[in-house]
Amino acid sequence: MKAYNFLETHFKEISIIDQISSILGWDKEVIMPTGSLHARIEQSSYLIKLAHEKICNPLIREKINEALADLNLLNDWQKANLLEMKKIFDDYASVDNSLMREYSSLRQECEMVWRSARKNKSFNEVKPYFAKLLSVVRKIATAKADYFKVSPYQALVNEYDPKRKVEEIDNIFSELKNFLPQFIEKVRSTQGEKPELGGHFPIELQQQLGIEIMKDFGFDFNKGRLDTSTHPFCGGIPQDIRLTTRYDENDLFIALQGIIHETGHASYEYNLPLEYAYQPVGRNLGMAIHESQSLLTEMQIGRSDEFVEYLTPKLIKYFSVDRTKFNQKNITKYVKHVEPSFIRVDADEVTYPLHVIMRYELEKQLIRGDLEVGDLPSAWNAYFKQTIGLTPDNDALGVLQDTHWYSGIFGYFPSYTLGAVTAAQLMNSIRKAIPETNELIKGGKLKPIYDWLRINVHAKGKLFSADQMLVNSTGESLNPRYFIEYLESKYTHN
Amino acid sequence: MKAYNFLETHFKEISIIDQISSILGWDKEVIMPTGSLHARIEQSSYLIKLAHEKICNPLIREKINEALADLNLLNDWQKANLLEMKKIFDDYASVDNSLMREYSSLRQECEMVWRSARKNKSFNEVKPYFAKLLSVVRKIATAKADYFKVSPYQALVNEYDPKRKVEEIDNIFSELKNFLPQFIEKVRSTQGEKPELGGHFPIELQQQLGIEIMKDFGFDFNKGRLDTSTHPFCGGIPQDIRLTTRYDENDLFIALQGIIHETGHASYEYNLPLEYAYQPVGRNLGMAIHESQSLLTEMQIGRSDEFVEYLTPKLIKYFSVDRTKFNQKNITKYVKHVEPSFIRVDADEVTYPLHVIMRYELEKQLIRGDLEVGDLPSAWNAYFKQTIGLTPDNDALGVLQDTHWYSGIFGYFPSYTLGAVTAAQLMNSIRKAIPETNELIKGGKLKPIYDWLRINVHAKGKLFSADQMLVNSTGESLNPRYFIEYLESKYTHN
Repeated sequence: MKAYNFLETHFKEISIIDQISSILGWDKEVIMPTGSLHARIEQSSYLIKLAHEKICNPLIREKINEALADLNLLNDWQKANLLEMKKIFDDYASVDNSLMREYSSLRQECEMVWRSARKNKSFNEVKPYFAKLLSVVRKIATAKADYFKVSPYQALVNEYDPKRKVEEIDNIFSELKNFLPQFIEKVRSTQGEKPELGGHFPIELQQQLGIEIMKDFGFDFNKGRLDTSTHPFCGGIPQDIRLTTRYDENDLFIALQGIIHETGHASYEYNLPLEYAYQPVGRNLGMAIHESQSLLTEMQIGRSDEFVEYLTPKLIKYFSVDRTKFNQKNITKYVKHVEPSFIRVDADEVTYPLHVIMRYELEKQLIRGDLEVGDLPSAWNAYFKQTIGLTPDNDALGVLQDTHWYSGIFGYFPSYTLGAVTAAQLMNSIRKAIPETNELIKGGKLKPIYDWLRINVHAKGKLFSADQMLVNSTGESLNPRYFIEYLESKYTHN
Repeated sequence: MKAYNFLETHFKEISIIDQISSILGWDKEVIMPTGSLHARIEQSSYLIKLAHEKICNPLIREKINEALADLNLLNDWQKANLLEMKKIFDDYASVDNSLMREYSSLRQECEMVWRSARKNKSFNEVKPYFAKLLSVVRKIATAKADYFKVSPYQALVNEYDPKRKVEEIDNIFSELKNFLPQFIEKVRSTQGEKPELGGHFPIELQQQLGIEIMKDFGFDFNKGRLDTSTHPFCGGIPQDIRLTTRYDENDLFIALQGIIHETGHASYEYNLPLEYAYQPVGRNLGMAIHESQSLLTEMQIGRSDEFVEYLTPKLIKYFSVDRTKFNQKNITKYVKHVEPSFIRVDADEVTYPLHVIMRYELEKQLIRGDLEVGDLPSAWNAYFKQTIGLTPDNDALGVLQDTHWYSGIFGYFPSYTLGAVTAAQLMNSIRKAIPETNELIKGGKLKPIYDWLRINVHAKGKLFSADQMLVNSTGESLNPRYFIEYLESKYTHN
């Protein structure tokens, strides 16, 4: 136990450093004056270096091995915690530090150039930076692949969705690719026009409405905040969750759907097991499960007919609107409208997976070396035309739209759709466990639903793998059939 | 040079840790949800421990001695920097670490009890905690006194106003005590009633006005912010200055004077020498000089007749007010009204020093052991009656009003009045150097005044001692005659 206890103390320090980084990261996006950027980079880099030194330490390897030799003395949480510590250590140990430093500086540079390239709609501007970055990402993937004895792309996926096999993603995405195109056609042929809602929505009132809805979802403002940033995110720390959204005075759904989505992420963080708040086992299960919580909240609940029934009187209470347009039927049609378009983050829930599958297939090729940077825009455009039926007018509407690749992030994209698939499977089990689910949503009484999620998902931290958590809570591994059934029921049974 | 360069790198890390602490401290007062207090304490304590470990390190002593042996290789800034490093090291080395930990926990406890004791107007509630804390403060003062070969109270003063001799404070305060009581009587006999201004001042407009005035004082919002907190303060870091104030919709002067005061503090921080931003020599000269900058801004400029001339049309522009009351003459009378009262932070500029001198004399006795905790309230009340002419109705209006002592802070109080005295001396030199000072204030064109302060005070960092800085910029050491002349001219020559 001595070695294990040493590690708990040590990893608590690392966790505190991470928490401080999180608060500084939130501050940078929400509050910080621009002139302070240089100082903030110094601060954040120092914290990263500090955490890195604490993890990449021969003493830690020694203590982990000592503790592993006494594994039978530990309870289940401690065992899972120790294995997480080993995973964190291995992850750092697997790649040479100088390569990581090169990566860190190239990704910052490339991301900055990408911003202006996207503005200028010119992939060529970012191409040389992106090529250099990709080459380093491939080296990192290869190093991790060698260390962990997996494929390079699998090694990258493991960072965002640990233990998810690429073959499993292939299977799930292939089922979706078979189903979605005809389904989209079917929905579009029957859904009619997207209603025009109109109206003017003062930001302050949108904020008040957002806060009211967050409270119904169980958000505790003694342990969190709602703020404004260019891109919505959920930051802070489990004891101090900080959501952001962005506002448009002419379209209240932009801020509202951002708030609902991030509230789903928040529910996961603030329900994590408090007694392991400073330990690796107390963290979330990765991006796919995190996204499942935001999408369950935003899509399964937040865009259901029952939620619109709950929401409509609130909208009418807060805003002066034309009630011949602004009614439950039109709002339902509005939030459920399916329409292929260029930008992933604006996509409806039905075409969204096609955006993700495309990025997944292209990034696999990029990492394998089957696709080179110079050929990426044309590969993108051809793929987009073939699956979604549109050809981007320019790179800003196409290959330049997402920050991920230009920030050196590969293996993350599948999480979005795996999250949607997971959300459907969890919601299916919730509906079985709580037959009055629809009535609860209509009344805005969401506590029993989030209690189920807290008990089965959130409060388990990393005690189980994502797959085992799903088996425990839904009776089976990830299965896309629930997502397909959900889409069929929501979009064709009106 | 090798040892010196090592120390520069090392102290840069310490400075980054301090910067992070500052941002977290600001966040705690302005933004943080209350439920996150425990996590924040963990974070802040970790950073304090980290900085402490980096300073209290035998290697640092060794490197300082090595660098001192090669002092002639260093330029003036480097020399001053090295001596500051030595001072920081000695300061930590002078007191046993276990005593400092005891102090740290007692002061937190006592401060918490003081809050409720003040609310309940009962000194007895806090008495046992305060007695324990004072006993540890005396031990620390004695340890520092032994180490630095000074008196215990001098050792405490050195923390807030380095190199200021207690004898010098005694002399200055004795001149003020001779002058002020009759002067207050004289002003009160001729000033007339304090005008009632009235009006309603929406907070958002007060903020806009505050921002406009801050800009005239040279504040750059690319490198700082204005926010709201229970008690106004100036926090953040030199590259990211964060001022706060508090608002009262019925009295615009509360927020405005807070903003002007803190803007003076800010001017010092953002004009510190950028090339030494992460080094001890790049910091400010201590609390007396810091307070001189806020008081020069708030009192010398912000409550001058010329500033009121600049301010009045703005007030009329922003707020709908009764212009028969709300005019330059009445506003001038309002901000310059002298009236003895119980609470130091609400005191006018003329009686304020008497509040400070009382605390100075009592805390000297407390540290020497000439006054015990049980006798403090009666000593306070007797002294207050004798000098200010009033007897507090209860402890909240008396001995419990300030947080300092109950937070373990002794030796800080004189800084407020030494700051006021310094401000008058600096302003006297500014008026000589810039004969059109009054015209500049009337026009809100304050740049030349702050340029003078930047060149002579701010941008020097800790290159010189406070006293040497004054000799360089005003031709003499601190002299209370300028403060006395300033009060005479401002309050009796109408």
